Amino acid sequence: MKILILGLDGYIGWSLALHQLSLGNEVCGIDNFSRRKSVEEIGSWSAIPILPIEKRMNILQKEYGDKITFHAGDLVDSNFTNDVIGKFKPDAIIHLAEQPSAPYSMIDQSHTLYTQYNNVMGTLNVIYAMKNYVPKSHLIKLGTMGEYGTPDLEIAEGFMEVEFRGKKATIPYPRFAGSWYHWSKVHDSNNVAFACKLWGLSSTDIMQGIVYGTRTAEITDPNKHTRFDFDEIFGTVINRYCAQAVIGHPLTVYGKGGQTRGFLALEDSIQCMSILIENPPEKGEYRVINQFDQQYQVSELAERVKRIADKKGLDATIQQLENPRVEKEEHYYKADHEQLKKLGFRATRHIDDEIGIMLDDLTSHEDRIRTKKDQMTKQVKWRDGSSTIKQRIVNPLILPTD
Amino acid sequence: MKILILGLDGYIGWSLALHQLSLGNEVCGIDNFSRRKSVEEIGSWSAIPILPIEKRMNILQKEYGDKITFHAGDLVDSNFTNDVIGKFKPDAIIHLAEQPSAPYSMIDQSHTLYTQYNNVMGTLNVIYAMKNYVPKSHLIKLGTMGEYGTPDLEIAEGFMEVEFRGKKATIPYPRFAGSWYHWSKVHDSNNVAFACKLWGLSSTDIMQGIVYGTRTAEITDPNKHTRFDFDEIFGTVINRYCAQAVIGHPLTVYGKGGQTRGFLALEDSIQCMSILIENPPEKGEYRVINQFDQQYQVSELAERVKRIADKKGLDATIQQLENPRVEKEEHYYKADHEQLKKLGFRATRHIDDEIGIMLDDLTSHEDRIRTKKDQMTKQVKWRDGSSTIKQRIVNPLILPTD
Repeated sequence: MKILILGLDGYIGWSLALHQLSLGNEVCGIDNFSRRKSVEEIGSWSAIPILPIEKRMNILQKEYGDKITFHAGDLVDSNFTNDVIGKFKPDAIIHLAEQPSAPYSMIDQSHTLYTQYNNVMGTLNVIYAMKNYVPKSHLIKLGTMGEYGTPDLEIAEGFMEVEFRGKKATIPYPRFAGSWYHWSKVHDSNNVAFACKLWGLSSTDIMQGIVYGTRTAEITDPNKHTRFDFDEIFGTVINRYCAQAVIGHPLTVYGKGGQTRGFLALEDSIQCMSILIENPPEKGEYRVINQFDQQYQVSELAERVKRIADKKGLDATIQQLENPRVEKEEHYYKADHEQLKKLGFRATRHIDDEIGIMLDDLTSHEDRIRTKKDQMTKQVKWRDGSSTIKQRIVNPLILPTD
Repeated sequence: MKILILGLDGYIGWSLALHQLSLGNEVCGIDNFSRRKSVEEIGSWSAIPILPIEKRMNILQKEYGDKITFHAGDLVDSNFTNDVIGKFKPDAIIHLAEQPSAPYSMIDQSHTLYTQYNNVMGTLNVIYAMKNYVPKSHLIKLGTMGEYGTPDLEIAEGFMEVEFRGKKATIPYPRFAGSWYHWSKVHDSNNVAFACKLWGLSSTDIMQGIVYGTRTAEITDPNKHTRFDFDEIFGTVINRYCAQAVIGHPLTVYGKGGQTRGFLALEDSIQCMSILIENPPEKGEYRVINQFDQQYQVSELAERVKRIADKKGLDATIQQLENPRVEKEEHYYKADHEQLKKLGFRATRHIDDEIGIMLDDLTSHEDRIRTKKDQMTKQVKWRDGSSTIKQRIVNPLILPTD
């Protein structure tokens, strides 16, 4: 199979590329390096050093020859997107190339505009390129469980049956997103669903939980490590707790800590996506998958990381911070995640084992975390943003010329 | 009251400005003239000639002095939007400045990108400017009944109560939009609702039916006429039928003609918006209003226009065209529209009278319609667009500099 990975240089993109190559698939990647640039922009870096893209490609090409190719470019450039998709003609397109951080989208107006512009325009260019060149390809788009928010209802997988004034219908599960980033993902979900209806494209929209971990089976030597962000803006909660534990920084819980979310180890995220690649939906189908392993409260996760860190002699503490976000800190949460199980997904990683591995991996890079420790409590406030981060530059939208 | 009209130069914007001035309110308007430019781009024009903006302003200033002001500019320019809203400090902002045509958004990739870019970025700039300068102002945003599409359920006003697996909740009424334009409106509705929750802004989101007519009480002489589009791309259905009847062109019905929609006379649309201006929602409230008078099937409307035209000796015919759109041609449709009635709205125009007036008004401009008659059956196809219209230019996104 020919697999196009949009955002190959990122945390999941790189890990997925390694795995897909190991399966014998042909992989083409693109990236505009916005993750490297954004993390640098906010003053942080990856705890685990990663190689520049040229060296990453050299390493993969030595092992896999011309089964791996890469193009630097931006999806908001319609010509670039058309060109890559038109020439590679992928069987599956994995779209991981969105601005992925909620706090980043809340910094200020320029970051809000950048996020929705980048995500919505980029995704429109992807679906137009599919229509133009590979209408039978399978678009696997990374959405987020955060699109659903925390309604006081069980969360279904994408759709729900309702009865209203005596008539029954299946409707899209309502979205209660909680940041400009999360809403950009909802806009994209709506656009992709419409493209499937309009043009008969096929898409799997993954509502993914929060991913944690430093490892996959293919990350066998330091040159193959994937990035690991631990700052408040790009570091997700378990990853940040582990980085904090390693340097003796209190694990920072927002508010009451009763926020419940679905979580998934990096290894299992890659497994899920690979299952979805191998099991495409029908032609014209817009399929929604809730992709996570277990639900946890963020305070419970802090206790869990503390317990495992303490066993390693790290002596972790927990500190409640004023919550910078606008969100419920105690709420009902029960989300379906049945479809991946039906397709054969079984979680292979236990969270405690994974946290142990993360703490060990991160201890090797303790100095890099300590140097940037102020980035872990930057506190981008949902209502007022951040006044210390400078304006985000927006790449120009380039319209198709052919 | 100070009323800011975004899109003052358009069909509804101009009519609303005349009415608001007649009520003694202070009106500031902006426009980037995209409607004039887009209609010219596709090769058509307004059936009823309108004056250039400078002359329009001269006429209003003679009558209303400094109670009317105008600024040419584009909402995607954050500085322009901040500047206008920060200086005028409106009590109400009426947002009519979106690309308003479904077929236009379906022409090709550049028109899709332009539509979502213009509408989503422009609206984000408006809500940021409100937050920055007039957080207590009232944003009246023009959405469309088309956001709901044609579900096999009664259509509520914005929200519905559902029961799901034993729990009840109020959820946003699901959206089944049918074009890239309609989805851009859904994206904006979602963004505005979030801004109300996040920043405590107040907004009324109008899900408006299809507006028809050439007149309002304030359109008393030819210099005050509002534009009237009759081409397939910008002309809405009753308006187009009337223009067709006037020149003896068959009234063109798409497919079976069972498509049912809500409709509203221009005079009554202006009345509704004026009622909403006078009755703002609570602070932080996101209020959704379904704004239309009566439901009709498009084939029934063709019969109605034919009957009235025939009485005037116009000898109209009806022709079914292959439907260029992707839509149901026969479907259930029953939409609530109670809230405006509770606020005092009573329709003042009967559709038959209005069609009679339109036919008379348009007969005076028969030549202008005849000259552009090919534009009435341009047939932008939902699945394949149009290959004859050139690429749409996109104004650059300008980020805030202060």
